[in-house]
Amino acid sequence: MKRSFIREILESIDEETISFAGGLPDEMLFPLKDLKEANAKVYEHATNLQYTTSDGLFELREKIAELYNEEGFPTDAKNILITTGSQQALYIIAKHFQNREITIENPSYLGAVNIFKINSLSMKAITLKNNGIKIKQFKKAYKKSKLCYLIPDFQNPMASLYSDAKREKIAKYILKTDGYIIEDAPYNKLYFEKKSQSISSRIPNNSLHLGSFSKTLSPSLRLGWVRGNTEIIKEFLKIKETIDLHSCSIAQHTLNNYLTDKQNYKCHLQNIRDSYKKKMEFFAKALQRHLPAFRFEKPKGGMFIYGYLKGVDTYELVQECMKKKVVFVPANQFYLGDETSDEIRFNFTHSSAEEVENGLKKIALTLIAL
Amino acid sequence: MKRSFIREILESIDEETISFAGGLPDEMLFPLKDLKEANAKVYEHATNLQYTTSDGLFELREKIAELYNEEGFPTDAKNILITTGSQQALYIIAKHFQNREITIENPSYLGAVNIFKINSLSMKAITLKNNGIKIKQFKKAYKKSKLCYLIPDFQNPMASLYSDAKREKIAKYILKTDGYIIEDAPYNKLYFEKKSQSISSRIPNNSLHLGSFSKTLSPSLRLGWVRGNTEIIKEFLKIKETIDLHSCSIAQHTLNNYLTDKQNYKCHLQNIRDSYKKKMEFFAKALQRHLPAFRFEKPKGGMFIYGYLKGVDTYELVQECMKKKVVFVPANQFYLGDETSDEIRFNFTHSSAEEVENGLKKIALTLIAL
Repeated sequence: MKRSFIREILESIDEETISFAGGLPDEMLFPLKDLKEANAKVYEHATNLQYTTSDGLFELREKIAELYNEEGFPTDAKNILITTGSQQALYIIAKHFQNREITIENPSYLGAVNIFKINSLSMKAITLKNNGIKIKQFKKAYKKSKLCYLIPDFQNPMASLYSDAKREKIAKYILKTDGYIIEDAPYNKLYFEKKSQSISSRIPNNSLHLGSFSKTLSPSLRLGWVRGNTEIIKEFLKIKETIDLHSCSIAQHTLNNYLTDKQNYKCHLQNIRDSYKKKMEFFAKALQRHLPAFRFEKPKGGMFIYGYLKGVDTYELVQECMKKKVVFVPANQFYLGDETSDEIRFNFTHSSAEEVENGLKKIALTLIAL
Repeated sequence: MKRSFIREILESIDEETISFAGGLPDEMLFPLKDLKEANAKVYEHATNLQYTTSDGLFELREKIAELYNEEGFPTDAKNILITTGSQQALYIIAKHFQNREITIENPSYLGAVNIFKINSLSMKAITLKNNGIKIKQFKKAYKKSKLCYLIPDFQNPMASLYSDAKREKIAKYILKTDGYIIEDAPYNKLYFEKKSQSISSRIPNNSLHLGSFSKTLSPSLRLGWVRGNTEIIKEFLKIKETIDLHSCSIAQHTLNNYLTDKQNYKCHLQNIRDSYKKKMEFFAKALQRHLPAFRFEKPKGGMFIYGYLKGVDTYELVQECMKKKVVFVPANQFYLGDETSDEIRFNFTHSSAEEVENGLKKIALTLIAL
């Protein structure tokens, strides 16, 4: 039901619509030339176009493992399973844990909530604050479920960043109760100031760390991964193999070729961070100018600005905005319950400066007329 | 358990091993130059590298629909869902029908059997003959399940081809009982003489027709599809979206560009058919020369030769052969039960003439020493 409204928003978008709704990266930042070169090389060997192993290209898994090792999180290729986006990693994990209980954030990523529903996991949602989940409530729920799904870095939708203190407390509690965390980290490289240490790296055997190249390189690759202990990765592999045999090997070889020049990849990441920081600052200023009633804290990374228009039913607001060809996601869509909400998620990475100005002006006018 | 033995065989393959085990297409026939060109064009527009819709690229779905229309099977882009290989299409369908009964062939494709197991479908397996499934038994089982999974064209593993009479009887019965057929057709374009009319085209609203580009173009694309009525495709779309958002869009755009030159694609298909027919004839002659005790009928298409060594436990035989660095799949792996079998599936598409000669000689020597 909720999914269908977000789909309704996205499907209403035509060429005239200004959209702050989706979670699209800025395609101007895709490293087109480098990816094209990396892709062309795939055709040097016909065997690259054959079936490949279900766990993913070994060299690529090695390179991802190396990225972890550089951050001080000891990882081997055997700890990595390549998936069709981190969305599929999440599906595989949920399939493995089907019919269990799971502790999640409220609000949470709707794509994950749908995965949990379809695999009959019963969700207990705990209030999320700007510095992370409420610890007391979390512990109470986790004690029972021994499984949680958290997005500690620039969460979707709230853009919140877990404090180091909360990360430490959560890690300790998971270790103590010997459960698992599913740590979804698609935005963790999109920090504006500094990278936080993951919860997973503090508890390597009790964590499932999800990563993706969709936000940093290009969503078209549809490549993500899960990092876990070797035993559970073997279990996931059986499911992965059953679902689709393996992920696109043209994309895997392309990515593997691209990552060979590690320095180039790091420059690219810095470029994205700089660019998104500027875009966020611009969006934040435009919000203060056009929608001064909108209360928010500037995010420290990621792709979203999250806040509220006190007392305004933003679900009602967006329906009026759709008629005026400007869209965002009203936050009631991200909550498990059916309550109304005055909160909004704005995506700041995809629109041009002109679109931001015009779009926010339109929303302000619609708000006055509401 | 069974899956693990086939994996054991496949994992035992090193550079010295001659393998008739996998279902690999001949990579010498991949249209490398054309695919490379089609792929390079993807980078002309950065938006091609953005997220895309879950049902798949519209232009690609239109082209697949057109291929059906040319065969006299009226189809619209809305009838098509693009999937990560036809394996994923099968997974999505099984997820939709989870906990149901399903009538399947005995022996059957192990990748499908595992999908049915993981989605808790209870399987009733009906004897498969060279001209198709046993009709009387099929009807009895189908009456109850109203759902079946069949591979009418050059089945994996048996290479059997359903007669037109059996196709017609099955179609009529499915229509009468208003159930569904899942018709898996990865090999249907690999005929040596003529193309058979699908069962699905006789009952467009009661059929789910699965197709793949893995056997005709390249497995590395990981692109397949399911054709069904628009209502059920909408249901499948919700599952597809939940599993992995969408299939690799670089691959989808590449394929879409490649298929723009339809004539070229058709020449390519004819080339594969001619080449595989020659390879099959060569393999069949080599079998008669080196393994005269092996009884088989020459297949009319596909990728496998299937037959038996009367009274020989081929599961035992392959374990000896593995030590001698030559492998095939013993047919007990494809049966639902635990009975021994004297049957063998040989893949004839992937090995060179020299490998066929040497491999079959080794098997003959191993057989004598058994």
